[in-house]
Amino acid sequence: MQEIKTISFIGSGNVATALAIHLFKKKYTISQVYSKNLHNAQVLAKKVKAKATNHIQNIADADLYIIALKDDVIETVSKKIKNKNIPIVHTSGTVSTEVFYKNKFKTFGCFYPLQTFSKKNKLGVSNFPILLEANDTKFYSKLEKLALAVSANRLRANSKQRLNIHLAAVLACNFTNYLYSVSEDILNQSHFKINLLYPLIKQTAENAKKEKVFTLQTGPAIRKDYSTIRKHLQVLEKNKKAKKMYRLLTQAIQEKATE
Amino acid sequence: MQEIKTISFIGSGNVATALAIHLFKKKYTISQVYSKNLHNAQVLAKKVKAKATNHIQNIADADLYIIALKDDVIETVSKKIKNKNIPIVHTSGTVSTEVFYKNKFKTFGCFYPLQTFSKKNKLGVSNFPILLEANDTKFYSKLEKLALAVSANRLRANSKQRLNIHLAAVLACNFTNYLYSVSEDILNQSHFKINLLYPLIKQTAENAKKEKVFTLQTGPAIRKDYSTIRKHLQVLEKNKKAKKMYRLLTQAIQEKATE
Repeated sequence: MQEIKTISFIGSGNVATALAIHLFKKKYTISQVYSKNLHNAQVLAKKVKAKATNHIQNIADADLYIIALKDDVIETVSKKIKNKNIPIVHTSGTVSTEVFYKNKFKTFGCFYPLQTFSKKNKLGVSNFPILLEANDTKFYSKLEKLALAVSANRLRANSKQRLNIHLAAVLACNFTNYLYSVSEDILNQSHFKINLLYPLIKQTAENAKKEKVFTLQTGPAIRKDYSTIRKHLQVLEKNKKAKKMYRLLTQAIQEKATE
Repeated sequence: MQEIKTISFIGSGNVATALAIHLFKKKYTISQVYSKNLHNAQVLAKKVKAKATNHIQNIADADLYIIALKDDVIETVSKKIKNKNIPIVHTSGTVSTEVFYKNKFKTFGCFYPLQTFSKKNKLGVSNFPILLEANDTKFYSKLEKLALAVSANRLRANSKQRLNIHLAAVLACNFTNYLYSVSEDILNQSHFKINLLYPLIKQTAENAKKEKVFTLQTGPAIRKDYSTIRKHLQVLEKNKKAKKMYRLLTQAIQEKATE
Protein backbone atom coordinates (compact mmCIF):
# COMPACT_ATOMS: atom_id res chain seq x y z
CA MET A 1 0.00 0.00 0.00
CA GLN A 2 1.45 3.31 -1.07
CA GLU A 3 1.68 6.47 1.02
CA ILE A 4 -1.37 8.74 0.99
CA LYS A 5 -0.51 11.66 -1.27
CA THR A 6 -3.60 12.19 -3.37
CA ILE A 7 -7.12 12.36 -2.00
CA SER A 8 -10.55 12.59 -3.60
CA PHE A 9 -13.31 14.13 -1.52
CA ILE A 10 -16.82 12.79 -1.70
CA GLY A 11 -18.87 15.65 -0.30
CA SER A 12 -18.46 19.43 -0.29
CA GLY A 13 -20.05 20.49 2.99
CA ASN A 14 -18.49 22.01 6.11
CA VAL A 15 -16.28 19.05 7.04
CA ALA A 16 -15.15 18.33 3.47
CA THR A 17 -14.36 22.02 2.93
CA ALA A 18 -12.38 22.42 6.15
CA LEU A 19 -10.38 19.21 5.64
CA ALA A 20 -9.76 19.62 1.91
CA ILE A 21 -8.52 23.19 2.24
CA HIS A 22 -6.32 22.29 5.20
CA LEU A 23 -4.80 19.19 3.53
CA PHE A 24 -4.27 21.12 0.29
CA LYS A 25 -2.27 23.68 2.28
CA LYS A 26 -0.30 20.79 3.77
CA LYS A 27 0.78 19.77 0.22
CA TYR A 28 -1.64 16.92 -0.31
CA THR A 29 -3.03 16.69 -3.82
CA ILE A 30 -6.80 16.89 -3.95
CA SER A 31 -7.73 15.01 -7.13
CA GLN A 32 -11.42 15.50 -7.29
CA VAL A 33 -14.44 16.73 -5.37
CA TYR A 34 -17.81 15.04 -5.77
CA SER A 35 -21.14 16.51 -4.83
CA LYS A 36 -24.56 15.68 -6.25
CA ASN A 37 -24.83 19.45 -6.65
CA LEU A 38 -22.20 20.28 -9.30
CA HIS A 39 -21.95 23.93 -8.29
CA ASN A 40 -21.08 23.00 -4.69
CA ALA A 41 -18.45 20.56 -5.95
CA GLN A 42 -16.99 23.27 -8.18
CA VAL A 43 -16.83 25.86 -5.39
CA LEU A 44 -14.68 23.60 -3.23
CA ALA A 45 -12.73 22.09 -6.16
CA LYS A 46 -11.63 25.56 -7.25
CA LYS A 47 -10.22 26.30 -3.79
CA VAL A 48 -8.05 23.18 -3.78
CA LYS A 49 -7.16 23.02 -7.49
CA ALA A 50 -9.16 19.84 -7.98
CA LYS A 51 -11.65 18.67 -10.58
CA ALA A 52 -15.34 18.60 -9.80
CA THR A 53 -17.96 15.98 -10.60
CA ASN A 54 -21.57 15.25 -9.78
CA HIS A 55 -21.36 11.69 -11.05
CA ILE A 56 -20.13 9.39 -8.31
CA GLN A 57 -19.31 6.70 -10.91
CA ASN A 58 -16.72 9.12 -12.33
CA ILE A 59 -14.90 9.78 -9.07
CA ALA A 60 -11.18 9.79 -9.86
CA ASP A 61 -8.79 7.23 -8.42
CA ALA A 62 -6.61 8.47 -5.60
CA ASP A 63 -4.62 7.10 -2.66
CA LEU A 64 -7.64 7.74 -0.46
CA TYR A 65 -11.31 8.56 -0.70
CA ILE A 66 -12.70 10.69 2.09
CA ILE A 67 -16.49 10.56 2.29
CA ALA A 68 -17.85 13.57 4.16
CA LEU A 69 -21.57 13.31 3.52
CA LYS A 70 -24.71 13.20 5.63
CA ASP A 71 -24.79 9.91 7.54
CA ASP A 72 -27.99 8.84 5.78
CA VAL A 73 -26.39 8.65 2.34
CA ILE A 74 -22.92 7.25 3.08
CA GLU A 75 -24.04 3.69 2.36
CA THR A 76 -25.87 4.43 -0.90
CA VAL A 77 -23.14 6.66 -2.29
CA SER A 78 -20.27 4.36 -1.36
CA LYS A 79 -22.10 1.46 -3.06
CA LYS A 80 -21.96 3.37 -6.35
CA ILE A 81 -18.20 3.86 -6.26
CA LYS A 82 -16.68 1.63 -8.97
CA ASN A 83 -13.16 1.04 -7.72
CA LYS A 84 -13.45 -0.86 -4.45
CA ASN A 85 -9.67 -1.18 -4.22
CA ILE A 86 -9.18 2.44 -3.24
CA PRO A 87 -8.78 2.81 0.53
CA ILE A 88 -11.75 4.73 1.92
CA VAL A 89 -12.77 6.49 5.11
CA HIS A 90 -15.78 8.44 6.22
CA THR A 91 -15.79 11.34 8.66
CA SER A 92 -18.96 10.37 10.48
CA GLY A 93 -19.29 10.10 14.23
CA THR A 94 -22.11 7.60 14.08
CA VAL A 95 -21.80 5.40 11.00
CA SER A 96 -20.11 2.04 11.58
CA THR A 97 -17.25 1.20 9.25
CA GLU A 98 -19.22 -2.03 8.56
CA VAL A 99 -20.85 -0.04 5.80
CA PHE A 100 -17.67 -0.31 3.71
CA TYR A 101 -17.26 -4.01 4.43
CA LYS A 102 -20.80 -4.62 3.24
CA ASN A 103 -20.03 -2.68 0.07
CA LYS A 104 -16.96 -4.82 -0.72
CA PHE A 105 -14.24 -2.30 0.00
CA LYS A 106 -10.94 -3.92 0.91
CA THR A 107 -9.34 -1.22 2.99
CA PHE A 108 -11.47 1.11 5.03
CA GLY A 109 -11.84 3.06 8.20
CA CYS A 110 -12.97 6.25 9.84
CA PHE A 111 -11.35 9.68 10.15
CA TYR A 112 -13.65 11.59 12.49
CA PRO A 113 -12.59 15.10 13.49
CA LEU A 114 -14.16 15.92 16.84
CA GLN A 115 -14.70 19.57 16.08
CA THR A 116 -17.37 21.93 14.76
CA PHE A 117 -16.73 23.30 11.28
CA SER A 118 -18.45 26.01 9.38
CA LYS A 119 -17.51 27.16 5.91
CA LYS A 120 -16.76 30.56 7.46
CA ASN A 121 -14.24 29.20 9.96
CA LYS A 122 -10.88 28.07 8.78
CA LEU A 123 -9.45 25.00 10.41
CA GLY A 124 -7.02 26.51 12.86
CA VAL A 125 -4.09 25.08 14.75
CA SER A 126 -6.22 23.96 17.67
CA ASN A 127 -5.42 20.59 19.05
CA PHE A 128 -8.76 18.84 18.60
CA PRO A 129 -9.00 15.04 18.66
CA ILE A 130 -9.27 13.01 15.49
CA LEU A 131 -10.81 9.62 16.15
CA LEU A 132 -9.40 6.92 13.91
CA GLU A 133 -10.48 3.43 12.99
CA ALA A 134 -9.14 1.06 10.33
CA ASN A 135 -9.60 -2.56 9.29
CA ASP A 136 -5.88 -2.99 8.71
CA THR A 137 -2.79 -2.09 10.75
CA LYS A 138 -0.82 -0.60 7.88
CA PHE A 139 -3.77 1.51 6.83
CA TYR A 140 -4.20 2.66 10.43
CA SER A 141 -0.60 3.92 10.42
CA LYS A 142 -1.21 5.83 7.21
CA LEU A 143 -4.36 7.40 8.66
CA GLU A 144 -2.38 8.36 11.75
CA LYS A 145 0.13 10.16 9.56
CA LEU A 146 -2.66 11.96 7.71
CA ALA A 147 -4.28 12.90 11.01
CA LEU A 148 -1.00 14.40 12.19
CA ALA A 149 -1.20 16.84 9.28
CA VAL A 150 -4.43 18.12 10.81
CA SER A 151 -3.96 17.82 14.58
CA ALA A 152 -1.43 16.38 17.02
CA ASN A 153 -4.29 14.91 19.01
CA ARG A 154 -5.43 11.61 17.50
CA LEU A 155 -6.78 8.47 19.09
CA ARG A 156 -8.34 5.12 18.31
CA ALA A 157 -12.04 4.63 18.85
CA ASN A 158 -14.19 1.82 17.55
CA SER A 159 -17.58 2.43 15.95
CA LYS A 160 -19.52 1.94 19.20
CA GLN A 161 -17.30 4.27 21.23
CA ARG A 162 -17.43 6.83 18.45
CA LEU A 163 -21.23 6.87 18.55
CA ASN A 164 -21.18 7.69 22.29
CA ILE A 165 -18.55 10.36 21.78
CA HIS A 166 -20.55 11.87 18.92
CA LEU A 167 -23.69 12.02 21.05
CA ALA A 168 -21.72 13.70 23.84
CA ALA A 169 -20.39 16.17 21.28
CA VAL A 170 -23.89 17.02 20.04
CA LEU A 171 -24.93 17.91 23.60
CA ALA A 172 -21.78 19.90 24.34
CA CYS A 173 -21.62 21.70 21.00
CA ASN A 174 -24.78 21.73 18.88
CA PHE A 175 -27.25 22.07 21.73
CA THR A 176 -25.01 24.58 23.45
CA ASN A 177 -24.75 26.68 20.29
CA TYR A 178 -28.55 26.62 20.04
CA LEU A 179 -28.81 27.86 23.64
CA TYR A 180 -26.35 30.65 22.83
CA SER A 181 -28.55 31.62 19.89
CA VAL A 182 -31.72 31.81 22.02
CA SER A 183 -29.73 33.75 24.59
CA GLU A 184 -28.66 36.14 21.82
CA ASP A 185 -32.30 36.66 20.77
CA ILE A 186 -33.28 37.57 24.35
CA LEU A 187 -30.38 40.01 24.64
CA ASN A 188 -31.22 41.61 21.30
CA GLN A 189 -34.75 42.28 22.57
CA SER A 190 -33.14 44.53 25.20
CA HIS A 191 -30.68 46.01 22.69
CA PHE A 192 -27.70 44.17 24.11
CA LYS A 193 -25.37 41.97 22.12
CA ILE A 194 -24.16 38.42 22.66
CA ASN A 195 -20.61 39.62 23.32
CA LEU A 196 -21.88 40.87 26.71
CA LEU A 197 -22.05 37.21 27.73
CA TYR A 198 -18.71 36.15 26.31
CA PRO A 199 -16.76 36.26 29.62
CA LEU A 200 -19.46 34.10 31.20
CA ILE A 201 -19.54 31.69 28.27
CA LYS A 202 -15.76 31.44 28.35
CA GLN A 203 -15.64 30.72 32.09
CA THR A 204 -18.35 28.08 31.75
CA ALA A 205 -16.36 26.42 28.97
CA GLU A 206 -13.18 26.61 31.09
CA ASN A 207 -15.02 24.83 33.90
CA ALA A 208 -15.63 21.90 31.56
CA LYS A 209 -11.88 21.26 31.40
CA LYS A 210 -12.17 19.71 34.83
CA GLU A 211 -14.01 16.56 35.68
CA LYS A 212 -17.37 16.44 37.46
CA VAL A 213 -18.67 19.63 35.88
CA PHE A 214 -22.02 19.19 37.61
CA THR A 215 -20.35 20.07 40.92
CA LEU A 216 -19.86 23.55 39.40
CA GLN A 217 -23.53 23.95 38.52
CA THR A 218 -24.88 27.38 39.51
CA GLY A 219 -28.09 29.30 38.83
CA PRO A 220 -31.73 29.38 39.94
CA ALA A 221 -32.51 25.71 39.13
CA ILE A 222 -29.90 24.21 41.43
CA ARG A 223 -30.54 26.91 44.07
CA LYS A 224 -34.25 26.12 43.84
CA ASP A 225 -34.81 29.83 43.50
CA TYR A 226 -38.42 29.65 42.40
CA SER A 227 -39.17 33.37 42.39
CA THR A 228 -36.42 33.82 39.78
CA ILE A 229 -37.64 30.83 37.77
CA ARG A 230 -41.15 32.35 37.74
CA LYS A 231 -39.79 35.67 36.47
CA HIS A 232 -37.82 33.96 33.71
CA LEU A 233 -40.89 32.01 32.61
CA GLN A 234 -42.81 35.31 32.43
CA VAL A 235 -40.15 36.78 30.13
CA LEU A 236 -40.49 33.68 27.93
CA GLU A 237 -44.31 33.84 27.94
CA LYS A 238 -44.55 34.53 24.20
CA ASN A 239 -42.01 31.91 23.18
CA LYS A 240 -43.72 28.59 23.90
CA LYS A 241 -40.85 26.39 22.68
CA ALA A 242 -38.24 28.25 24.72
CA LYS A 243 -40.50 28.19 27.77
CA LYS A 244 -40.93 24.42 27.49
CA MET A 245 -37.18 23.98 27.10
CA TYR A 246 -36.52 26.22 30.12
CA ARG A 247 -38.91 24.14 32.26
CA LEU A 248 -37.47 20.82 31.12
CA LEU A 249 -33.84 21.81 31.69
CA THR A 250 -34.67 23.32 35.09
CA GLN A 251 -36.36 20.07 36.15
CA ALA A 252 -33.53 17.99 34.75
CA ILE A 253 -30.95 20.00 36.74
CA GLN A 254 -32.99 19.60 39.92
CA GLU A 255 -33.39 15.86 39.37
CA LYS A 256 -29.69 15.39 38.66
CA ALA A 257 -28.91 17.26 41.89
CA THR A 258 -30.82 14.65 43.90
CA GLU A 259 -29.17 11.63 42.21
CA MET B 1 -21.60 60.32 51.45
CA GLN B 2 -18.23 58.90 52.33
CA GLU B 3 -16.06 56.67 50.16
CA ILE B 4 -16.73 52.96 50.30
CA LYS B 5 -13.96 51.45 52.41
CA THR B 6 -15.74 49.03 54.72
CA ILE B 7 -18.29 46.47 53.57
CA SER B 8 -20.51 44.02 55.39
CA PHE B 9 -21.63 40.96 53.47
CA ILE B 10 -25.10 39.57 53.93
CA GLY B 11 -24.74 36.06 52.60
CA SER B 12 -21.89 33.56 52.43
CA GLY B 13 -22.56 31.63 49.23
CA ASN B 14 -20.62 31.49 45.97
CA VAL B 15 -21.07 35.14 44.97
CA ALA B 16 -20.48 36.52 48.49
CA THR B 17 -17.37 34.35 48.85
CA ALA B 18 -15.88 35.33 45.49
CA LEU B 19 -16.55 39.05 45.97
CA ALA B 20 -15.56 39.26 49.63
CA ILE B 21 -12.24 37.48 49.10
CA HIS B 22 -11.46 39.56 46.04
CA LEU B 23 -12.34 42.90 47.69
CA PHE B 24 -10.42 41.93 50.83
CA LYS B 25 -7.34 41.38 48.64
CA LYS B 26 -7.98 44.79 47.10
CA LYS B 27 -7.62 46.36 50.58
CA TYR B 28 -11.29 46.81 51.37
CA THR B 29 -12.23 46.11 54.98
CA ILE B 30 -14.84 43.42 55.36
CA SER B 31 -16.57 44.25 58.64
CA GLN B 32 -18.92 41.38 59.04
CA VAL B 33 -20.41 38.38 57.29
CA TYR B 34 -23.99 37.36 57.97
CA SER B 35 -25.50 33.98 57.23
CA LYS B 36 -28.46 32.31 58.90
CA ASN B 37 -26.06 29.38 59.21
CA LEU B 38 -23.40 30.61 61.64
CA HIS B 39 -20.81 28.07 60.50
CA ASN B 40 -21.05 29.27 56.89
CA ALA B 41 -20.71 32.88 58.04
CA GLN B 42 -17.64 31.92 60.10
CA VAL B 43 -15.97 30.07 57.21
CA LEU B 44 -16.09 33.14 54.97
CA ALA B 45 -15.46 35.63 57.81
CA LYS B 46 -12.24 33.85 58.71
CA LYS B 47 -10.95 34.19 55.15
CA VAL B 48 -11.47 37.95 55.08
CA LYS B 49 -10.68 38.77 58.73
CA ALA B 50 -14.26 39.76 59.44
CA LYS B 51 -16.69 39.00 62.25
CA ALA B 52 -19.49 36.52 61.71
CA THR B 53 -23.11 36.68 62.77
CA ASN B 54 -26.30 34.74 62.24
CA HIS B 55 -28.50 37.54 63.61
CA ILE B 56 -29.34 39.98 60.85
CA GLN B 57 -30.38 42.58 63.47
CA ASN B 58 -26.75 42.59 64.63
CA ILE B 59 -25.21 43.25 61.23
CA ALA B 60 -22.44 45.80 61.77
CA ASP B 61 -22.53 49.29 60.26
CA ALA B 62 -20.28 49.75 57.23
CA ASP B 63 -19.97 52.04 54.22
CA LEU B 64 -21.89 49.46 52.21
CA TYR B 65 -24.01 46.38 52.67
CA ILE B 66 -23.78 43.81 49.93
CA ILE B 67 -26.66 41.33 49.99
CA ALA B 68 -25.73 38.15 48.15
CA LEU B 69 -28.58 35.83 49.03
CA LYS B 70 -31.10 33.74 47.14
CA ASP B 71 -33.52 36.06 45.34
CA ASP B 72 -36.47 34.70 47.36
CA VAL B 73 -35.18 36.00 50.68
CA ILE B 74 -33.65 39.37 49.75
CA GLU B 75 -36.83 41.23 50.66
CA THR B 76 -37.42 39.52 54.01
CA VAL B 77 -33.81 39.78 55.14
CA SER B 78 -33.36 43.41 54.08
CA LYS B 79 -36.53 44.32 55.99
CA LYS B 80 -34.91 43.08 59.21
CA ILE B 81 -31.83 45.29 58.87
CA LYS B 82 -32.05 48.01 61.51
CA ASN B 83 -29.98 50.83 60.04
CA LYS B 84 -31.71 51.93 56.85
CA ASN B 85 -29.17 54.73 56.40
CA ILE B 86 -26.43 52.38 55.25
CA PRO B 87 -26.14 52.27 51.45
CA ILE B 88 -27.13 48.83 50.24
CA VAL B 89 -26.90 46.78 47.05
CA HIS B 90 -27.87 43.27 46.09
CA THR B 91 -26.07 41.09 43.56
CA SER B 92 -29.17 39.59 42.00
CA GLY B 93 -29.86 39.48 38.29
CA THR B 94 -33.60 39.40 38.70
CA VAL B 95 -34.65 41.30 41.83
CA SER B 96 -35.75 44.89 41.22
CA THR B 97 -34.06 47.52 43.38
CA GLU B 98 -37.64 48.56 44.31
CA VAL B 99 -37.28 46.04 47.12
CA PHE B 100 -34.99 48.47 48.99
CA TYR B 101 -37.26 51.45 48.37
CA LYS B 102 -40.19 49.52 49.82
CA ASN B 103 -38.06 48.69 52.85
CA LYS B 104 -37.23 52.37 53.52
CA PHE B 105 -33.57 52.35 52.53
CA LYS B 106 -32.34 55.76 51.45
CA THR B 107 -29.47 54.80 49.16
CA PHE B 108 -29.59 51.60 47.22
CA GLY B 109 -28.79 49.84 44.02
CA CYS B 110 -27.54 46.70 42.37
CA PHE B 111 -24.07 45.28 41.83
CA TYR B 112 -24.61 42.27 39.58
CA PRO B 113 -21.52 40.39 38.41
CA LEU B 114 -22.34 38.64 35.15
CA GLN B 115 -20.20 35.62 35.85
CA THR B 116 -20.46 32.12 37.29
CA PHE B 117 -18.83 31.64 40.67
CA SER B 118 -18.10 28.52 42.60
CA LYS B 119 -16.39 28.38 45.95
CA LYS B 120 -13.65 26.39 44.24
CA ASN B 121 -12.89 29.01 41.61
CA LYS B 122 -11.12 32.16 42.57
CA LEU B 123 -12.30 35.33 40.95
CA GLY B 124 -9.63 35.86 38.33
CA VAL B 125 -8.62 38.87 36.32
CA SER B 126 -11.11 38.16 33.56
CA ASN B 127 -12.94 41.14 32.22
CA PHE B 128 -16.53 40.14 32.95
CA PRO B 129 -19.32 42.75 33.00
CA ILE B 130 -20.64 44.13 36.26
CA LEU B 131 -24.13 45.55 35.81
CA LEU B 132 -24.76 48.55 38.03
CA GLU B 133 -27.86 50.39 39.13
CA ALA B 134 -28.29 53.10 41.78
CA ASN B 135 -31.02 55.47 42.95
CA ASP B 136 -28.54 58.33 43.31
CA THR B 137 -25.82 59.72 41.02
CA LYS B 138 -23.17 60.01 43.72
CA PHE B 139 -23.81 56.49 44.89
CA TYR B 140 -23.61 55.27 41.28
CA SER B 141 -20.11 56.79 41.02
CA LYS B 142 -19.05 55.04 44.20
CA LEU B 143 -20.37 51.74 42.91
CA GLU B 144 -18.49 52.31 39.66
CA LYS B 145 -15.28 52.73 41.62
CA LEU B 146 -15.98 49.57 43.62
CA ALA B 147 -16.76 47.70 40.39
CA LEU B 148 -13.40 48.80 38.95
CA ALA B 149 -11.70 46.94 41.79
CA VAL B 150 -13.32 43.78 40.45
CA SER B 151 -13.44 44.23 36.65
CA ALA B 152 -12.74 46.95 34.10
CA ASN B 153 -15.97 46.06 32.36
CA ARG B 154 -18.95 47.72 34.05
CA LEU B 155 -22.18 49.09 32.65
CA ARG B 156 -25.52 50.50 33.63
CA ALA B 157 -28.60 48.32 33.36
CA ASN B 158 -32.00 48.94 34.88
CA SER B 159 -33.94 46.22 36.68
CA LYS B 160 -35.91 45.19 33.58
CA GLN B 161 -32.86 44.96 31.33
CA ARG B 162 -31.02 43.04 34.03
CA LEU B 163 -33.79 40.43 34.19
CA ASN B 164 -33.45 39.78 30.44
CA ILE B 165 -29.68 39.61 30.69
CA HIS B 166 -29.92 37.23 33.63
CA LEU B 167 -32.26 34.92 31.72
CA ALA B 168 -29.87 34.96 28.75
CA ALA B 169 -27.04 34.12 31.15
CA VAL B 170 -28.94 31.14 32.59
CA LEU B 171 -29.34 29.69 29.09
CA ALA B 172 -25.74 30.35 28.08
CA CYS B 173 -24.16 29.24 31.36
CA ASN B 174 -26.31 27.13 33.68
CA PHE B 175 -28.07 25.13 30.99
CA THR B 176 -24.85 24.77 29.07
CA ASN B 177 -23.03 23.48 32.14
CA TYR B 178 -25.82 20.95 32.64
CA LEU B 179 -25.41 19.77 29.04
CA TYR B 180 -21.67 19.43 29.62
CA SER B 181 -22.41 17.29 32.67
CA VAL B 182 -24.74 14.93 30.75
CA SER B 183 -22.15 14.80 28.01
CA GLU B 184 -19.56 13.85 30.64
CA ASP B 185 -21.79 11.03 31.91
CA ILE B 186 -22.13 9.61 28.39
CA LEU B 187 -18.36 9.77 27.85
CA ASN B 188 -17.67 8.13 31.19
CA GLN B 189 -19.88 5.21 30.16
CA SER B 190 -17.36 4.56 27.37
CA HIS B 191 -14.37 5.22 29.65
CA PHE B 192 -13.55 8.56 28.08
CA LYS B 193 -13.21 11.80 29.96
CA ILE B 194 -14.78 15.21 29.43
CA ASN B 195 -11.42 16.74 28.50
CA LEU B 196 -11.73 14.86 25.18
CA LEU B 197 -14.40 17.40 24.25
CA TYR B 198 -12.60 20.49 25.47
CA PRO B 199 -11.31 21.64 22.03
CA LEU B 200 -14.86 21.34 20.70
CA ILE B 201 -16.37 23.14 23.69
CA LYS B 202 -13.78 25.89 23.36
CA GLN B 203 -14.43 26.39 19.63
CA THR B 204 -18.19 26.50 20.24
CA ALA B 205 -17.68 29.14 22.92
CA GLU B 206 -15.37 31.11 20.58
CA ASN B 207 -18.11 31.09 17.94
CA ALA B 208 -20.39 32.90 20.40
CA LYS B 209 -18.09 35.91 20.32
CA LYS B 210 -19.58 36.76 16.97
CA GLU B 211 -23.12 37.80 16.33
CA LYS B 212 -25.78 35.54 14.79
CA VAL B 213 -24.46 32.38 16.36
CA PHE B 214 -27.31 30.37 14.89
CA THR B 215 -25.72 30.75 11.43
CA LEU B 216 -22.90 28.58 12.84
CA GLN B 217 -25.25 25.82 13.95
CA THR B 218 -23.97 22.35 12.98
CA GLY B 219 -24.97 18.80 13.83
CA PRO B 220 -27.64 16.24 12.97
CA ALA B 221 -30.64 18.40 13.94
CA ILE B 222 -29.91 21.23 11.49
CA ARG B 223 -28.73 18.74 8.82
CA LYS B 224 -31.97 16.80 9.33
CA ASP B 225 -29.83 13.72 9.62
CA TYR B 226 -32.53 11.42 10.96
CA SER B 227 -30.53 8.20 10.95
CA THR B 228 -28.03 9.81 13.34
CA ILE B 229 -30.82 11.21 15.49
CA ARG B 230 -32.34 7.72 15.74
CA LYS B 231 -29.00 6.23 16.81
CA HIS B 232 -28.55 8.91 19.48
CA LEU B 233 -32.04 8.26 20.84
CA GLN B 234 -31.18 4.56 21.06
CA VAL B 235 -28.09 5.34 23.15
CA LEU B 236 -30.29 7.46 25.44
CA GLU B 237 -32.97 4.74 25.70
CA LYS B 238 -32.42 4.17 29.42
CA ASN B 239 -32.27 7.85 30.34
CA LYS B 240 -35.82 9.12 29.80
CA LYS B 241 -35.14 12.70 30.88
CA ALA B 242 -32.12 13.07 28.63
CA LYS B 243 -34.01 11.49 25.73
CA LYS B 244 -36.87 13.97 26.14
CA MET B 245 -34.40 16.84 26.27
CA TYR B 246 -32.60 15.57 23.16
CA ARG B 247 -35.90 15.41 21.25
CA LEU B 248 -37.05 18.85 22.38
CA LEU B 249 -33.76 20.58 21.53
CA THR B 250 -33.58 18.81 18.16
CA GLN B 251 -37.09 20.01 17.31
CA ALA B 252 -36.32 23.51 18.57
CA ILE B 253 -33.22 23.73 16.35
CA GLN B 254 -35.20 22.53 13.33
CA GLU B 255 -37.98 25.02 14.00
CA LYS B 256 -35.56 27.90 14.47
CA ALA B 257 -33.95 26.99 11.14
CA THR B 258 -37.27 27.56 9.35
CA GLU B 259 -37.98 30.93 11.01
